[in-house]
Amino acid sequence: MKTSEEKHLQFLAPKSIAIIGASNKPEKRGYQAIAQLKADGFDQSKIFPINPKAPDILGIKAYPSLMDVQESIDIALVCTPASSLPAVIADCGRKGIRGAVILAAGMSEMGEEGKLLEQNMLAAAKEWNVRLVGPNTNGVFNLHCNLNMVGVSDAGKGDIGILSQSGNVMLGFVAEAKRKGGVGFSTYIGVGNQSDIRLSEYLEYFGDDENTAATTVYIEGFKEGDGRRFLEVARQVVHKKPVVVYKSGRTAAGQVSASSHTGSLAGSYQLTRDVLRQAGVTVVSESDKVLSVAEALGELPLPKGNRVAILCDSGGHGTITTDALVEAGLVLAELSPDTLTRLKATLPPAAALNNPIDVAGATDEDTSAFADCTDILLQDDNVDVLMIVGMVGAYSVRFSATLLENEMETSRRIIDLAHKYGKPVVAQCVYQPLKPKPLLMLREHGIPVFIWAETAIRCVKELVDYAQARRRLASTNPHPDATPKSAGTAIFDKAYAEGRAALFESEAKDLLRTYGITVPAELVVRSEADLDSLPAEIADASLAMKIVSKDILHKTDAGGVKLKVQGTQERLAAYREIIANAKRYKADADIEGVLLAPMLKPGVEVILGVTQDPTFGPVMMFGLGGVFVEVLKDVAFRSIPLAETDAREMIEQIRAVEILNGARGTDPVNREALVELIMKLSDLVWKHPEISELDLNPVIARADGCSIADARIIMAVRKDHE
Amino acid sequence: MKTSEEKHLQFLAPKSIAIIGASNKPEKRGYQAIAQLKADGFDQSKIFPINPKAPDILGIKAYPSLMDVQESIDIALVCTPASSLPAVIADCGRKGIRGAVILAAGMSEMGEEGKLLEQNMLAAAKEWNVRLVGPNTNGVFNLHCNLNMVGVSDAGKGDIGILSQSGNVMLGFVAEAKRKGGVGFSTYIGVGNQSDIRLSEYLEYFGDDENTAATTVYIEGFKEGDGRRFLEVARQVVHKKPVVVYKSGRTAAGQVSASSHTGSLAGSYQLTRDVLRQAGVTVVSESDKVLSVAEALGELPLPKGNRVAILCDSGGHGTITTDALVEAGLVLAELSPDTLTRLKATLPPAAALNNPIDVAGATDEDTSAFADCTDILLQDDNVDVLMIVGMVGAYSVRFSATLLENEMETSRRIIDLAHKYGKPVVAQCVYQPLKPKPLLMLREHGIPVFIWAETAIRCVKELVDYAQARRRLASTNPHPDATPKSAGTAIFDKAYAEGRAALFESEAKDLLRTYGITVPAELVVRSEADLDSLPAEIADASLAMKIVSKDILHKTDAGGVKLKVQGTQERLAAYREIIANAKRYKADADIEGVLLAPMLKPGVEVILGVTQDPTFGPVMMFGLGGVFVEVLKDVAFRSIPLAETDAREMIEQIRAVEILNGARGTDPVNREALVELIMKLSDLVWKHPEISELDLNPVIARADGCSIADARIIMAVRKDHE
Repeated sequence: MKTSEEKHLQFLAPKSIAIIGASNKPEKRGYQAIAQLKADGFDQSKIFPINPKAPDILGIKAYPSLMDVQESIDIALVCTPASSLPAVIADCGRKGIRGAVILAAGMSEMGEEGKLLEQNMLAAAKEWNVRLVGPNTNGVFNLHCNLNMVGVSDAGKGDIGILSQSGNVMLGFVAEAKRKGGVGFSTYIGVGNQSDIRLSEYLEYFGDDENTAATTVYIEGFKEGDGRRFLEVARQVVHKKPVVVYKSGRTAAGQVSASSHTGSLAGSYQLTRDVLRQAGVTVVSESDKVLSVAEALGELPLPKGNRVAILCDSGGHGTITTDALVEAGLVLAELSPDTLTRLKATLPPAAALNNPIDVAGATDEDTSAFADCTDILLQDDNVDVLMIVGMVGAYSVRFSATLLENEMETSRRIIDLAHKYGKPVVAQCVYQPLKPKPLLMLREHGIPVFIWAETAIRCVKELVDYAQARRRLASTNPHPDATPKSAGTAIFDKAYAEGRAALFESEAKDLLRTYGITVPAELVVRSEADLDSLPAEIADASLAMKIVSKDILHKTDAGGVKLKVQGTQERLAAYREIIANAKRYKADADIEGVLLAPMLKPGVEVILGVTQDPTFGPVMMFGLGGVFVEVLKDVAFRSIPLAETDAREMIEQIRAVEILNGARGTDPVNREALVELIMKLSDLVWKHPEISELDLNPVIARADGCSIADARIIMAVRKDHE
Repeated sequence: MKTSEEKHLQFLAPKSIAIIGASNKPEKRGYQAIAQLKADGFDQSKIFPINPKAPDILGIKAYPSLMDVQESIDIALVCTPASSLPAVIADCGRKGIRGAVILAAGMSEMGEEGKLLEQNMLAAAKEWNVRLVGPNTNGVFNLHCNLNMVGVSDAGKGDIGILSQSGNVMLGFVAEAKRKGGVGFSTYIGVGNQSDIRLSEYLEYFGDDENTAATTVYIEGFKEGDGRRFLEVARQVVHKKPVVVYKSGRTAAGQVSASSHTGSLAGSYQLTRDVLRQAGVTVVSESDKVLSVAEALGELPLPKGNRVAILCDSGGHGTITTDALVEAGLVLAELSPDTLTRLKATLPPAAALNNPIDVAGATDEDTSAFADCTDILLQDDNVDVLMIVGMVGAYSVRFSATLLENEMETSRRIIDLAHKYGKPVVAQCVYQPLKPKPLLMLREHGIPVFIWAETAIRCVKELVDYAQARRRLASTNPHPDATPKSAGTAIFDKAYAEGRAALFESEAKDLLRTYGITVPAELVVRSEADLDSLPAEIADASLAMKIVSKDILHKTDAGGVKLKVQGTQERLAAYREIIANAKRYKADADIEGVLLAPMLKPGVEVILGVTQDPTFGPVMMFGLGGVFVEVLKDVAFRSIPLAETDAREMIEQIRAVEILNGARGTDPVNREALVELIMKLSDLVWKHPEISELDLNPVIARADGCSIADARIIMAVRKDHE
C-alpha cells in the first residue's frame, strides 16, 4: 500500500484541505474545524467545505461533492459517519487526495458489522491509493502549516511532536506546555484505530519533519508486526532526534483497560521498555515527566558522560537534587583541584566548594556569581552536565524587583557560556511557574528550567542515557547474515520429520555446537552394553544421568535424573533405575536412551532464554537462576539480533549483577565468555526461525568460562525461512 | 529546660512581639519584618522595635532596650549578630519573654569560637527560661496570628503546617500552593541549628495547633536522641492529624551535603523511612509530591481499604491511572453485580463498565453522568476510594463555556455524595492549572484535584497507608515492661566480669532460651572423654561441631567448624581436628571446648538482626539470608519494641516475601512462628540495653517452625539500666 513518493506522509503538511461533512452547525466538527482553520490563518482559498446542500460555510464557498472542486487538494478531513466511509474514500482517490483523516468511531472496535465496514474502507483506500489517519481519531494538527483539525485553541507553535493513541493525553501535554511557557508543538497525530497507517510509519514522518526537534509518543499497544518495525524506524530516527515514549497498559490491570480501549496487543512492560531502549528510544514511566524530558532532549547538546555538577544557593535544594541524582544512577562530578581553587577565589568563605557547590549568600545582592561559577565549572573536564538549582532567575521575585536587570545579565552570560562550552546546562527554580523574565530567557536560549529537582534530574538522566544510546547505535553493526548453517537445518529437519515439537536435549546441544558454542562433553547410552565402552572423560568423571525421550519433557518428575553418579557399579544401577522409572512414569514412552555428562564445576547459575514475542519478534532474556527469575523477576530483555554492547548492557542491567562480580567472596564471573555465548546464541536464533522458545537453564558461569548444563528448544510450526 | 506550661511552645502564637535589632534600613531584616507585620495587620500597638538610637521605625515607637518597654511581650525576633546573643537572650529573660527566634548564623556550624558562643547563649536561655528557635533560621510565620517574620508575601492562609530544616524548601511549598490555588498554610517554622528546640518538640506544637490539619516536615537529620523522641511524639500526633515527612540526605552523596549543611546525624534512609512509617508518619520520597500528599491527607476521610474505583472520560487517562495504581500497590475495586447493572442503565452502550469505568462520551453535552456514576460507585461496599480522572470540571474550558453551570451543578452533587457516603473522592484533570471554577469548588469542599495521575495516585496510596497505620497504632500495646529477667542479667554479668565484649554462642543461645525462645539442643564438649557420654538426641544425630573460644570469632576461617558429623569415630576425629586447627589459627587462644548440635532440617534462611541506631535507638532488621541481604539489600527495619502487627508488616515488606510463601514448590514457612520469635526477641532486646548488636543468622524457617542456627551478641560498654 506504501509507495515511495508517499512514504513520509507528506499530506500531513498540506497546503489545501477538504472538509467532508462540513456543517453550519457550531456543535459539529465539520463547523469547528473550518472555524479553527480560519482563526489560525490557513489560506481560505485553499479550504474546500464539502456539503451536498449548503452554498457556503462560515463565509467560504462550499461544494456539493469533491468532484465539483477544480483545484487540487492535499488532504481531507472526513467528518461523515462510519457507514459513508468506503464511498467517501473512493471519492478522495478519484479526486487525487493522498491522505484522509477519519474521525468516525464505530468500526473494528464495535463488532462484526464495524469490521466489515473497516475492511471495505481499507479496500477502497488501497484501490485508490489514499492513506488513512484513524478512524476513531480526534484528528491532527500541524501548527507550522496553520492546520489545526482538533480545535485545541491553546496549542503554541514549537518543536515538539506528539504521536498519540489518546487524544486526551495530547490535551494534557498542551495544557502543561501552556503552564510552563516557552514550550510548543509542531505536529500532533491522533492515531485512532491505525487501520492503515501505524505508529512506525508516523514515526518516520516525525523523523523527517524539520519542524520537530523531539517526538513524544503515547502508546497503548502496537498493531501486530508493527512493534518490530517501530524498533527499526526508531533506530534511524534517534540518530537525528530523540523519541520519548510513554507506554501505558503496563500492569495486568492496565492491560485490560488498554485492550478494551484500542483492541491492540499489549506485551510485558519490561520487555517493551528494554527493547525500545535498545533501539535508542527514551522510555519515561511517569506521564508528568514526558513533556519535560522531550523538551530537554530536544534542546540540549549531548553530554559526554554522566558526571553532574550542582550549583545551588540553597542547601535544601542542593541536598534534594543530590539525592535524586544518585538515586537516578547519575554521578556527582569530582571537581578538579584547579576548579576548587578557582571557586574558592570566587565565593565567600562560608561557601561549600565540593560538589554540590553552595554559593552561601554570594548571590544575594549580585547574582553574577552564578555565571562566574558556571564559567569555572563548565571548563572542568570532569563535569559533563551543570545543574543550577534553588532560586536562580527569581531573585527579583523573591527579594527585590531591583535585581531584575542584574539577573537578566546573569542569564545572558550563562547562555553564552553554555553555548561556548557546548555542555548541557539545566536550571531548577521553585518560582518557575511565575515565569520571571530571567528564566524565560534561559528557556528561550536552550536552557530548560524546571520547578522540581525530580523533574530536572529525570531529564538529565534521560539525556545522559540518550547520548550513550546514540554512541552505542553509531557503533553497532548492521544485521548479521541470516542464512542458517546446513548442519543446524538438518537437526530441525530430522525433528520435523519425526513429528516432534521440540528438539531432544542432545540435539539442542548439537545445534549449539554447530554455532561454535562449547557444550560440555556428553554421551547418549542406548543399552547397558554401551556403559562398558565409555570414553575416559566420561568414565572417570562424576556424572549427571538423564532420560532421553521425546515423550518425557519433565525429566525430574519422571525420576529420570540421577546426579553425582561415579564408578561402574553406580552407573549401571542408575541406568537401570532411570529406565525403570521412565517406563513407570509413562508406559508407552519412546525411550531413546540415557544421557551421561560430567557434573559441572559450581559457579553462578544464569539463565538465557529466547521467545518469539508477538509484538517484537525474537527476544532474548537474561537473568540469574532460581528465585532471581522466578520470584524477583530480575531479568533483562533484548531484541535479536544483539550487538555486543547490547549483550554487555543486558548483563549490567540486572539488579543482582554484583553477584557476577564475585559479591560473596568468590571470583568474578568471566564476563567476556558470557558476552560471547550471548552473541553466538543471538546469531543462532537469528538464523533459525524454527526456534519458538529456547532455554539454556542453567548456564553455570564461572571465572574460567561458562558451561551449559541444560538446553531446551521448542520448535515453531514449520514455515519457510523468512 | 522544658517546663510544663511551655511545652506546647505557645509563644509561637503570640499577641505581642519585640524586634531586637530593628532598623530603618529597608535591606535589613529588622526593617522588613516590621514592614511585613504592618502589612499583614498585626496589632501595631503590640509591635516593639528595639533600637538603641532610632526614636521610631516605620512610624512605630522604638525603644532603646527591652527593659524600656512597659507592656508584656510574648516573643522576640532577634536580628542582631551572633556575638550579641548571650546578652540579648538574658535581656529577653529579664523581660519575661518566653521565646526568641534567632536569625544569626555563625555559631556551632562555624568552628570553635561559634560553638562557645552557642553554649553561652544556651546557658543564658536555660538560666532565664527562654526557649530558642534557631539560630541560623530564616524565621517563623503563623498566618493565623498575622505573624510573618520571614517576609514571604505570597503565603496564603490555610491549614498546612511546615516544619523545615531549609527555608528555601518552604519557599518552594509556598510557590507551589500559589500555583495550585485553594491550598494555604498555618505555621511555618525554620528550625535552623536546633540548638534548643528540636524537631520533636516542634512536632508537638503542630499536633496541638488547632489551625493545622496536616504537617509537612523537611528533615536533613535529627539531633542526637531526637530521632527516637520524634517517633514517640509522631505516634501521638498521627492519631489527630497526618505528619508528612520528606527526608533528604538519603544517599551517601546526599548525606555529605546534608552534613555540611546542618551538622546533624543522617542515618540510613531505609531505616529512617521504616521506623517513621512504623510510627504512623507518611514518608514521601519525591519533593514534588509532599505538599499534594499533605493536602489530600489533611482533607480526606480515611478509607476502609485499598480498593479504588476509577471513573474516566478518557481511555488514555483511565489507563495511565490504572497503571500507576497497580504499580503503587493499590487494588482496582471489583464492582458488585448490582453496581454493574446500575452503571449499565446509566451509561451508553459504548461505555466500559468494568473498573476503570469509561463514560465514553456520556458527559459530552451534560456532565451529570459523573455525579450519577459517583452515586452508584460510592454505594458499592467494594469501593473504598473513588478517583474521577481526565477532563472532569474543565468541559467549559475544553469544549464550551455554556457548560459551566452544568459542571458547577455536577461538582455540587459530587461534593454532597462524598460527604453523604463518607468516602474519599479525588479528582485528576489536566486543566487544573487553569483553575476552572468547578474544580475550585471541588477543592474548597474537600475533594483535592491534581494535574497528573501520578500525583493523585501517590496521594491515594499514602491516604490508604495512613488509614492503615492509624488502625494499627490504635490497637498497638503500650511499651512492655523493661525489667530484665535475672537469669539474663546473670549471663551478661559473667561476660562483663570476664572482660569480654561478646557473649559466647552458647551463652547467647541460653539468653534466648531465658526469654522462651526455642533453640535446638546443643552441648559444649570440653574433653575427648565427654564424647563418650552424650545424650541420645545428640549421639544419634548428624551433627554440626564448632569451636567455642572467646578469642575466635570467625570460626569457619579458623577451621573450627565441621558439618554432618555422624557416629563415634567421626565425632572423635572432628573434635581433634577442630582443636588442632584452632590452636594452629591462634596459638594462645583460650579454648572453652567444642559445641555439638544436630544438623538442622533445611528450610528458608532468614536473618534477624538488632542494632543500636545513634538516631533511633534499638532497631530490628529482618531479611532473607545470603545474597538477599548482602547484594539486594532486601531488608526491613522496625524500632524496638515492636507490636505484633509491626512484626507481620516487617515480614511482608521484603520484596522476596513470596519465597516464604513457598514460591519454589516448597511448603509455606510458618509465619506465626516467625512473628512469635520476632516478638520475643523484641522483648529481650528491650530489656537488655547491654546488647549493642545481635545477629541470628541464619534462622532456618520451615513449615513446622523455625530454628536458630547461629546467634551472636556484641555487648555495649556496661552502663546502668536505662
